[in-house]
Amino acid sequence: MRTIAIDAMGGENAPKAIVQAVLQAKAELTQTKFILFGDLNKIKNLVGNDTDRVEIVATTQVINDEDEPVKAIRAKKDSSLVVAAQYVKQGKADALLSLSNTGAILACGIFIIGRISGVARPGLMPTLPVKNSDNGFNMIDVGANAKSKPEYILDWAKMASYYAEKVRGIKNPKVALLNNGAESDKGDELHQKAYKLLLDSQLNFIGNIEGNELLDGKADIVATDGFTGNAVLKNIEGTASVLIHLLKNSLLNNGFFVKLGAGLIKGALKKLVSKFDVDKYGGAVLLGVNAPIVKTHGRSGKRAIYYTIKQVDKILSEKIIADFKAEFTHHK
Amino acid sequence: MRTIAIDAMGGENAPKAIVQAVLQAKAELTQTKFILFGDLNKIKNLVGNDTDRVEIVATTQVINDEDEPVKAIRAKKDSSLVVAAQYVKQGKADALLSLSNTGAILACGIFIIGRISGVARPGLMPTLPVKNSDNGFNMIDVGANAKSKPEYILDWAKMASYYAEKVRGIKNPKVALLNNGAESDKGDELHQKAYKLLLDSQLNFIGNIEGNELLDGKADIVATDGFTGNAVLKNIEGTASVLIHLLKNSLLNNGFFVKLGAGLIKGALKKLVSKFDVDKYGGAVLLGVNAPIVKTHGRSGKRAIYYTIKQVDKILSEKIIADFKAEFTHHK
Repeated sequence: MRTIAIDAMGGENAPKAIVQAVLQAKAELTQTKFILFGDLNKIKNLVGNDTDRVEIVATTQVINDEDEPVKAIRAKKDSSLVVAAQYVKQGKADALLSLSNTGAILACGIFIIGRISGVARPGLMPTLPVKNSDNGFNMIDVGANAKSKPEYILDWAKMASYYAEKVRGIKNPKVALLNNGAESDKGDELHQKAYKLLLDSQLNFIGNIEGNELLDGKADIVATDGFTGNAVLKNIEGTASVLIHLLKNSLLNNGFFVKLGAGLIKGALKKLVSKFDVDKYGGAVLLGVNAPIVKTHGRSGKRAIYYTIKQVDKILSEKIIADFKAEFTHHK
Repeated sequence: MRTIAIDAMGGENAPKAIVQAVLQAKAELTQTKFILFGDLNKIKNLVGNDTDRVEIVATTQVINDEDEPVKAIRAKKDSSLVVAAQYVKQGKADALLSLSNTGAILACGIFIIGRISGVARPGLMPTLPVKNSDNGFNMIDVGANAKSKPEYILDWAKMASYYAEKVRGIKNPKVALLNNGAESDKGDELHQKAYKLLLDSQLNFIGNIEGNELLDGKADIVATDGFTGNAVLKNIEGTASVLIHLLKNSLLNNGFFVKLGAGLIKGALKKLVSKFDVDKYGGAVLLGVNAPIVKTHGRSGKRAIYYTIKQVDKILSEKIIADFKAEFTHHK
């Protein structure tokens, strides 16, 4: 039996959407147990009689987006997130899922659950959309680290490649390095050295990728330093959201015929918007810590959370953490 | 009389669109002389009888996008770009405009025309679109430097701020630092130090800006290290182009009514696409060298080139290079 610790108080739709998603996933994932952390009465009401394989742990505090991450996990020791992380640390749960403050989730991963020995730094990895397929690509690190070293980037690429193969079912995944040009000598010292490490590795390294090519689907995994990865990830979200906003505005403010046209293309537009809806691709995984820690967007509704629970369960069923431990502890 | 050296052989529409744009701009800019560098016969034919204030300098080589920049400017000494840069260096022209290989233009700026004494590193600065106005914002550096230092970022922000005020007419322009969070202690050492330098400067520094906020119009100038700036600039172009591609596809492949709708919204869509057409905002300026060097997109047509010529002329008329020289040589 696998056990997933679920922070039921994070995000805009907590705890309702979270509990509903758990109940839906539970019906399907018959080998999995769920522990919900948060407001006992509220959660109890939402769970109702469906209590099989569901445990509730009452907590009294909540970490907000405004909280300073490291301070918050120290000050709010009875928060749903911190208690859930403690359960994972103590072996009472196998994985952690939260919709809360990204920084606080990272801090729980690094300071409470702890990194895998041999992995220099954990990396945060979302799945992002690509142009011509529904598969998407993984980018790592997108901001768990402000400062990166070439060896970190190699570790992230290794873990991401293994993840893509096992969890996403991509054979021999193509790994690229985000850089400022195609040639092997491009970039600063960090990226030149990372290039060499990736080239000398056993990975299916296809070379550098530039910022304009990310969504083209050339690579299954884009390895990047955490600072650039963070800027680029946020920029994809920002650019897509501004474009969609401008498109909607221009469809509403250009007279009757444009409005009529807009009505006719509504369905096609919705599909497009959903492609750039990060929720669809599941949560971002913190790779390199002693248990799967998955963060999904605070805006996520029941459906997105349900898919993320299935993603966490798949990570557990593939036992990739045990493999990471063997790989990294062994080699270093 | 001001003189602009124009590389007539760069870009997809050379030399025709370039010569046509020069002739159009010339009619308006009566205090400006133009020197066109490239294929003598072709350019002569295009200029026709309109030879007043237009000089042609015959060159025999062309630098392509595939050329390795530094090698190319050494090997192709009789290329339109290199000879144009030599004219600027020798004081026979006051500014350089090219649609050619960005790296080669930067190399001409740094190795032929030379940096302003007191400016540690020149920075490349495009103007990019924002959500709710037609003004756009400037981002610097977007890739003239793979490796940056805090002092470089301060110099870029100073030059960009001066440029925004003089050339773009923005009073007391708001300067932000691209970083991985809003708080003053965010980022790696480079960005923490750059933050302090900007805060202690005379600039109207409004703090950090994150990748998702760039197009919101919060800042008139976004200062960034060249590596991240390059990734983000390319990513804005890439994300916008993928979204527009997907939108067009989904409008064409969803049956009769969607196609009908698409026909009705065509005009509104065109406006949107044009907002993300970088050409509209003029060329990217290399700031910190001894003369204005402006690069505009290789795809630019007559209209975009015409606007860029006017931009170069405005830079010359405001004499900002002389001011930079006084400012930076004086203070260091």
